[in-house]
Amino acid sequence: MSDMSTPLLPQAAATLARAGDAVRVLDQTALPHAEHYATLATLDDAAAAIRSMRVRGAPLIGATAAAGVALAMQADAGDAALAHALDVLARTRPTAVNLHWALARMRKRLTGLAAAERSTAAWDETLSIWAADAACNHAIGGHGLALLTAMAERHGRPLNIMTHCNAGWLATVAWGTALAPVYMAQLQGLRPHVWVSETRPRNQGLLTAWELRRAGVAHTLLADNACGQIMAQGQVDVVIVGADRIAANGDVANKVGTLLKALAAQACGVPFYVAAPRSTIDFACPRGADIPIEKRDAEEVRVVQGMQGACRIAPQDTACANPAFDVTPAALIAGIITEQGVLPPAQLAGARPQS
Amino acid sequence: MSDMSTPLLPQAAATLARAGDAVRVLDQTALPHAEHYATLATLDDAAAAIRSMRVRGAPLIGATAAAGVALAMQADAGDAALAHALDVLARTRPTAVNLHWALARMRKRLTGLAAAERSTAAWDETLSIWAADAACNHAIGGHGLALLTAMAERHGRPLNIMTHCNAGWLATVAWGTALAPVYMAQLQGLRPHVWVSETRPRNQGLLTAWELRRAGVAHTLLADNACGQIMAQGQVDVVIVGADRIAANGDVANKVGTLLKALAAQACGVPFYVAAPRSTIDFACPRGADIPIEKRDAEEVRVVQGMQGACRIAPQDTACANPAFDVTPAALIAGIITEQGVLPPAQLAGARPQS
Repeated sequence: MSDMSTPLLPQAAATLARAGDAVRVLDQTALPHAEHYATLATLDDAAAAIRSMRVRGAPLIGATAAAGVALAMQADAGDAALAHALDVLARTRPTAVNLHWALARMRKRLTGLAAAERSTAAWDETLSIWAADAACNHAIGGHGLALLTAMAERHGRPLNIMTHCNAGWLATVAWGTALAPVYMAQLQGLRPHVWVSETRPRNQGLLTAWELRRAGVAHTLLADNACGQIMAQGQVDVVIVGADRIAANGDVANKVGTLLKALAAQACGVPFYVAAPRSTIDFACPRGADIPIEKRDAEEVRVVQGMQGACRIAPQDTACANPAFDVTPAALIAGIITEQGVLPPAQLAGARPQS
Repeated sequence: MSDMSTPLLPQAAATLARAGDAVRVLDQTALPHAEHYATLATLDDAAAAIRSMRVRGAPLIGATAAAGVALAMQADAGDAALAHALDVLARTRPTAVNLHWALARMRKRLTGLAAAERSTAAWDETLSIWAADAACNHAIGGHGLALLTAMAERHGRPLNIMTHCNAGWLATVAWGTALAPVYMAQLQGLRPHVWVSETRPRNQGLLTAWELRRAGVAHTLLADNACGQIMAQGQVDVVIVGADRIAANGDVANKVGTLLKALAAQACGVPFYVAAPRSTIDFACPRGADIPIEKRDAEEVRVVQGMQGACRIAPQDTACANPAFDVTPAALIAGIITEQGVLPPAQLAGARPQS
């Protein structure tokens, strides 16, 4: 924790950066226990980093995929190489739609170009996607801050905010999605307190605790199981989570365990918000049931990442199921905080881009 | 796993046994990774074993507390020693009511006796409580089996049963509560499959997986977060959990995380049952909100027990909350499977003992 080479404040994050002909990423599989950086020099490096969750979080997956195309174009900018790069990257993770959104932008930008122009154009587009992500999340933070400010005034005290998984700056190019309003509330002196859910099996809650500690935001870690009880005791004012894909009807796929929090929030009268850029809305996907849910390796359930390394909790022959996401129905969601404002989940159609 | 000194079948369990002037207990903090036994020779040994969760599970806590009184009476059977023993044991764990039920039985049996008679009477009463627990759970298993048999016939295939924490024979003197119907279904050839929730922070789901493996019952381990998604996908036919205390209005305190499963079951149309002996019903406690919820040490959240020992996942100065139980409202519960049959939770008053 003493190595402060990553920033304390979320607006200048270091999840990924261009380093000459390569990309330097913060290795999130080593966090929060160690701060390691990895260099992605090729398409395969980028795909492997996404697959292994060295980079993770829907917006950051999109940002890294764009860079993966740029890395591929450096080596071979022909039509076959472009198609191959787009295909390899599209198959890394099935649920997060920002990945496909970023790849679609890269395809559109590069397809009509001569091979000689593609490498430069690919880097341009990648950096533009990165900048847009940071700006987008800043706007999400502003709209979320307005919500939190009104809520804090109503309660007349600092807010207790629950989140799930990590939708902070680590999951994005900068600011984060669900945590952007929290960081802005902290900068405004609202002194929010955050309930951090451990988020087994991969414990991304520890990434959230690590981020919040660096930014000086008060927080308390909970076993995922405890979230219902804490809400039932009136200790939560609002829940804000991120999203990996939002269907056209407002159903939200997010890290597994989100649905349980949304159900508990409804039962306890706690407003439940989703914070995500508009690029997370998949207008081609009518309902949550149509979103593919990634099934990850059973070993993730049998092994916990500890500060001293991997720790086996169940024998290797224990049968496990490991769905990485779940779907929260639109009816449980008070609003989707996007860069364009807070949208009612049942009325996303109005946000559909003209094409 | 190769040491088979504990039985394969739940009807002859070895959670605790009298060994001369002492009690031998299976150390559940070492399970499922190692099979160690501990000898409880004094009142303080018994109290410490309950507090540290070397013995755990509401019925087994009651059975061990009774033995604790017998151990105390061996050393000093005077009135002050009896009062002290009852007091020390009552303060070990606040939520499970079977503890108080067992101590009330011991008090009633011993109070009028001369000191010289108390040691023998205390052991008699203890062994009677142990035998009653085994018989009770066997009866719970029978009533639960009738439910499961009807359900399996309706579905025309083996059932998928979800449970939480460990309410198997490890949590009792024999058979278990929530798992008693599962074991009987297995013995009847119904081939049930059990979804086992990890149950962070103490991972008692691994105890359940260990029990089920020994009994040859098919099972799949899940992160607690995944339980909603698995239910939403139609992969669960019924949920059965144990209970630590049931209020007179049918609200149920059980291991933290139970409430989240009950909410998901309601949302998905999955029947949710609680299996517990009548001694778990606290008629003096009007509503779930009146049940004291134990807050355990924050270190349990920061540290995971692995097969090779303790594994720290969060720095020691991370703030954590660790409520050990939550309360599931009666309205979410299809029935409470007791030794007297399946009771509707809203109509427990009829089961009140005449006194």
